[in-house]
Amino acid sequence: MAFAINRLAIIGQGLIGSSITRAVHERKLNVETVVTDASGGVRDRVRELGLGAARIANSAAEAVSGADLVIVCVPVGQIGAVCASIAEALKPSAIVSDVGSVKVSAVNDMVQALRPGQPVVGAHPLAGTEFSGPDAGLPKLFVDRWCILTPHENCPVEAVEAVRDFWVQIGSDVELMTPLRHDEVLSLTSHLPHLIAYSIFHTALRDEQRNKDEVIKFSAGGFRDFTRIASSNPSMWRDIFIANREPVLRALDEFAKDIARTRTAIEQGDGDMLLDLFSTSRLTRRSLIEREHISVRKAKENQPEKRFLARPYASDE
Amino acid sequence: MAFAINRLAIIGQGLIGSSITRAVHERKLNVETVVTDASGGVRDRVRELGLGAARIANSAAEAVSGADLVIVCVPVGQIGAVCASIAEALKPSAIVSDVGSVKVSAVNDMVQALRPGQPVVGAHPLAGTEFSGPDAGLPKLFVDRWCILTPHENCPVEAVEAVRDFWVQIGSDVELMTPLRHDEVLSLTSHLPHLIAYSIFHTALRDEQRNKDEVIKFSAGGFRDFTRIASSNPSMWRDIFIANREPVLRALDEFAKDIARTRTAIEQGDGDMLLDLFSTSRLTRRSLIEREHISVRKAKENQPEKRFLARPYASDE
Repeated sequence: MAFAINRLAIIGQGLIGSSITRAVHERKLNVETVVTDASGGVRDRVRELGLGAARIANSAAEAVSGADLVIVCVPVGQIGAVCASIAEALKPSAIVSDVGSVKVSAVNDMVQALRPGQPVVGAHPLAGTEFSGPDAGLPKLFVDRWCILTPHENCPVEAVEAVRDFWVQIGSDVELMTPLRHDEVLSLTSHLPHLIAYSIFHTALRDEQRNKDEVIKFSAGGFRDFTRIASSNPSMWRDIFIANREPVLRALDEFAKDIARTRTAIEQGDGDMLLDLFSTSRLTRRSLIEREHISVRKAKENQPEKRFLARPYASDE
Repeated sequence: MAFAINRLAIIGQGLIGSSITRAVHERKLNVETVVTDASGGVRDRVRELGLGAARIANSAAEAVSGADLVIVCVPVGQIGAVCASIAEALKPSAIVSDVGSVKVSAVNDMVQALRPGQPVVGAHPLAGTEFSGPDAGLPKLFVDRWCILTPHENCPVEAVEAVRDFWVQIGSDVELMTPLRHDEVLSLTSHLPHLIAYSIFHTALRDEQRNKDEVIKFSAGGFRDFTRIASSNPSMWRDIFIANREPVLRALDEFAKDIARTRTAIEQGDGDMLLDLFSTSRLTRRSLIEREHISVRKAKENQPEKRFLARPYASDE
C-alpha cells in the first residue's frame, strides 16, 4: 500500500499545530493543508494570520474529509474524543497521528476511537516554547529538533515512512520507538525533572514569610534554574503526569532511593562517596555536550542552510 | 575603635581571591594589597599576570603582617589551618574574613584558630564561574552580586562596617545575616538544588547502556538544566555538604516529604492537587522575575555605569 500525502489535515491550531501549518507553507511542501480548531476564536485568528492553509474547516470531521494524513494537535487528554469525532469521516488509508508528550495513552486512545485497520503513528516533536496559541507558532520550530515516532504495532511500515518523510521535510530528525519505550525514556529525561523542580518550591518556600523573602532574594544559580524548569504550563503537566503515571512512579521511586543514599553519605560525613557521586555527574555532562557538538556539526555538513542549534525540547525559553 | 583599611592581605589566589585582587586594582582603591597562595606555582603565575598587588608574599604569615583586613580565600575545609598559621602575625585590630560558601563552620574555625578578641567577619560573595585558578579571576565578578556578611557575635560593629564598605567599593550589594541563618537559607537555595541535580543523574543513567544512550540522546529541557547545575566542582560541593550537614539534612527531609506528597497525587490520579502544586510554582517564578527587574532598574538608576545584570551566584555559566 502506498501512502502519498497529498492532503494534510491539522486539527488544533495552538503552538504546535499552527507551527506545523506555518512550516508546511514556508517549506513549500506539495500538499494541500486543511486546518481547524475547536475554538471559533482561534479559527478566526488563523484566518487573520493567514498561515498558508488552503482552507479552514469548521469542524474536525469536515477537515479530515479526503485527507491522507491527519495530525491531531490537541492536549493528550482530548485526543480520544477528537478521533471519535473523525472516525467515520476518514478515508480507510488516512494515517492518523498526533503530537502528544505521552505516547502509550495517546496511541491507545487513537486506535480505540478509530475504525479497525486505520493506520496510527504517534508522534512527539521535542520542541516547544513557553507560549501557546496560534500567534505563538513558528515555522522553524521543528528544525534540528527530534521528532519521536511511535507507530501502533499494526500500522503498515509504509505509513510510518510517510510520516517520517513529512517530519524530515519540515526539518526534524526522526527516531522510532515503541510507545512504552518513549514514555519510559521521557519519564526520566523530562517528566521526573519537572516534578522535582515543582517539589523543590514547596520545600524552599513553605516557611514563614521572612524565610520566603530571603530564599527568593538570595536564590542562587541552582534554585533559579529550577524556577525556569518549573514555570511551564500547569495543566499540560498535570495531564502528562496522569497519562504517564506508571513510568513516572517508577522513576520517582528510583530517585527517592538515590536521594536516600546521598542522605546517608552526608549524614555519615562520607566524603569519598559524595565525591564519587558528584564526579559521575561531570562525566555525563561532558558526554551530553559532546553529543550536542556532534549533532550541530552533522547538521551543518548535511544541510548548510540550517542555522539553528540542535537542541531538544525546552518548554521555557 | 576605628578600622581604616590601609593594608589588605588576600590569602589564596584562585578564582575568588584573584578576582578580589583584580577588583581592588581596577577600582583604584586606596589600599596596599599583599597577596599570597600556598602553591609556589600560583604565586609565580600571579607575578606573571601582574594583578595589581603591591607585593606577593611567600607565606600567609608574611602576607598578613601589618594588614588591617585579611581575606582568607581558600576552600572551607582549610580556613581553620590558615587562620592558625597567621594568628600570631596579626595586628590585634586586624579584621579576618573569608569567602566560604558555608558560614557557621567557617566563622567558628576562624574564631577558634585566632587569638581571643580578633575581629572576625564571615563573608560569602554569591558570585562565581565554572572555572578556577588565578587565570580565571575577573575584576567585575562581584559587581551587582550579593555579598552576605556573617560577623561573629563578638565582632565590633565598626569592623563589620569596614568590611561592608570594602565589598560595596568593589561593586557588591551587601546583606548581613547570622552564620546559622545564612547556612539555612543557602541550604534551600543552593545546596539542596545541587544535591538533587546530582541525584537525578544516577536515577536516569543507572540502567543498561541502551537506556543510557537514549536518555542522553533525548535529554529534554528539564534534564539538560539539571546537567548544567550538576557540572560544577565536585570537591567544592563535597566540602559544602560535609560542612553544612544539619541544614542540608533538614532541607532534604522536607523535600522528601514534598516528593512523597506529589507521588500520592500522581498515584491517585488527583489532577486538582497536581494543578495546585504546579500553579504555585508559576507564582513564585513570577515573583523572582519581578525582583530581578526591580534590582536591575535600581542598579541602573543609582549607578549608571553598571551594565551587568544583577543576578546571583551561578556556578556553571
